[in-house]
Amino acid sequence: MPSEFELIARYFTRRAAHAVLGVGDDGALIAPTPGQELVVSTDLLVEGTHFLADTDAEALGWKCLAVNVSDLAAMGAQPRWALLAAVLPAPTPEWIEAFARGFFACAQGYGIDLVGGDTTRGPRAFCVTILGEAPSGQALRRSGAKAGDSIWVSGRPGRAALGLAHLQGRTTLSGPRLADCLAALHRPQPRVALGLALRGLATAAIDVSDGLLADLGHILEQSARAARLQIPNLPAAGLERDCWLAGGDDYELLFTVPPGSDERVAELAGKLELPLTRIGEIVAGAPGELVLHDTDGSDITPARRGFDHFIQ
Amino acid sequence: MPSEFELIARYFTRRAAHAVLGVGDDGALIAPTPGQELVVSTDLLVEGTHFLADTDAEALGWKCLAVNVSDLAAMGAQPRWALLAAVLPAPTPEWIEAFARGFFACAQGYGIDLVGGDTTRGPRAFCVTILGEAPSGQALRRSGAKAGDSIWVSGRPGRAALGLAHLQGRTTLSGPRLADCLAALHRPQPRVALGLALRGLATAAIDVSDGLLADLGHILEQSARAARLQIPNLPAAGLERDCWLAGGDDYELLFTVPPGSDERVAELAGKLELPLTRIGEIVAGAPGELVLHDTDGSDITPARRGFDHFIQ
Repeated sequence: MPSEFELIARYFTRRAAHAVLGVGDDGALIAPTPGQELVVSTDLLVEGTHFLADTDAEALGWKCLAVNVSDLAAMGAQPRWALLAAVLPAPTPEWIEAFARGFFACAQGYGIDLVGGDTTRGPRAFCVTILGEAPSGQALRRSGAKAGDSIWVSGRPGRAALGLAHLQGRTTLSGPRLADCLAALHRPQPRVALGLALRGLATAAIDVSDGLLADLGHILEQSARAARLQIPNLPAAGLERDCWLAGGDDYELLFTVPPGSDERVAELAGKLELPLTRIGEIVAGAPGELVLHDTDGSDITPARRGFDHFIQ
Repeated sequence: MPSEFELIARYFTRRAAHAVLGVGDDGALIAPTPGQELVVSTDLLVEGTHFLADTDAEALGWKCLAVNVSDLAAMGAQPRWALLAAVLPAPTPEWIEAFARGFFACAQGYGIDLVGGDTTRGPRAFCVTILGEAPSGQALRRSGAKAGDSIWVSGRPGRAALGLAHLQGRTTLSGPRLADCLAALHRPQPRVALGLALRGLATAAIDVSDGLLADLGHILEQSARAARLQIPNLPAAGLERDCWLAGGDDYELLFTVPPGSDERVAELAGKLELPLTRIGEIVAGAPGELVLHDTDGSDITPARRGFDHFIQ
């Protein structure tokens, strides 16, 4: 196996267009934009917990960065720089090359410079740290939801979890539906443009990584509010409904907006060509409490809100 | 085992004195100091490669952060914020508590806020990302060494590798010598004050993590220069010499200063109460070439410069 230094030099040293000094020294040097706050986040992806052992290397490279980009999207921040730490058992040059291709496809797609990292031998795991910027005081948080706010979600939640269920033999998908769910699982599209557009509009935001209800729970706890949900076109009971409500790994944005803002959100959906669905409203009540109604008004609150990690 | 969220909340959520928003949202919010550049670095520590399975949890917590602090010391930066990602098999609350005690002891000692992180189940590994600041244009790099510069190292290299050799039964130490070497291995003291004092003085700097000669090699390659070394009081051939020259994990600083600066460095040693040793000089020559002379002038250049990772 090539040494740590050779691996880094060969596949991961690319010119950092927006850094003072990139990969190759003890640290990277970055010049923050005056008037902006830095938004920083770090995420682990561990084989067997966050991805299957046979996941395609290029897809994995994309996803490692994408899940971090999604955290910045949820903060309304512009992603700018990333660091990649990789634990690898004994990768072939082909594996590394494919992983790098996926990683840099995501980096270029979202305008991110890779400015540093570390590699070592061991059981496969990745840790990406991402840095972005938002104008001072304008980043979105989980803690601002108020009674009366409406609750929205982007995209079509549950597709990634359905794709995983197919790969694990728990359901059988086919045709365009299979392709769509596998794309959601392997190549999530973080909602950066939506996050930026929600600055000054959303009262709270989070990305759906643990499952819709679990992540809504985080907003409710940090905002000290409750919620009532009535979800249009929610699939009937069964795997599809479970995936919609509790499937992790979607990386859609879940957000709240003040009363009277629904029309602005609907306009945003058209402008971004992204489905945005109103799924309920914030109410006064026990912090974290969540009631889900069916279309006929009956209470169908499920026991399970999500997973700490989606592969059980 | 408590869930990911409970672990974070219980042990790692402390008030971030110098952050706009700390642990608990999708990302942390930081307000960079105007006129400063950000210095960012990330390091992996994997069980069996970077630390032994039975390493004391408190020592491990300290070291995970300390090795990152050392990277910033080598850049002449002031450490400010850190993020911790931990992969843990099935930690007891006692283990986590001890790890957190070591981690925060280091954080407080160096004035660092923990602002984010991630935890997951799996084979034990840690990834710390650290952020610091240096006035624009003043950070130290590996690439500035010039022919005629003298080469210096802080502290007494090789102690950590000797301590490890003792634990692995490859040598037997005792008394104060054993305690000293184990302290170097388990509780390295990053040379932040030295790094800050070297701004505007050193032409190149690196921290000794892979081994003295290996890390000097990085300076030589990036500066496109060669070096001649004659090390005062170098131990006679054998394990002690090997550890001095090639033992990793010391986290001392290796740096070069322009001709005529040796007296300033000697004064610095007194002021910081830290041994600083002149070990040779930069010369023109094949980039990366390194010749080591014994006190009698004979060439004793060793074949092995260091280790990618110190536990082989």
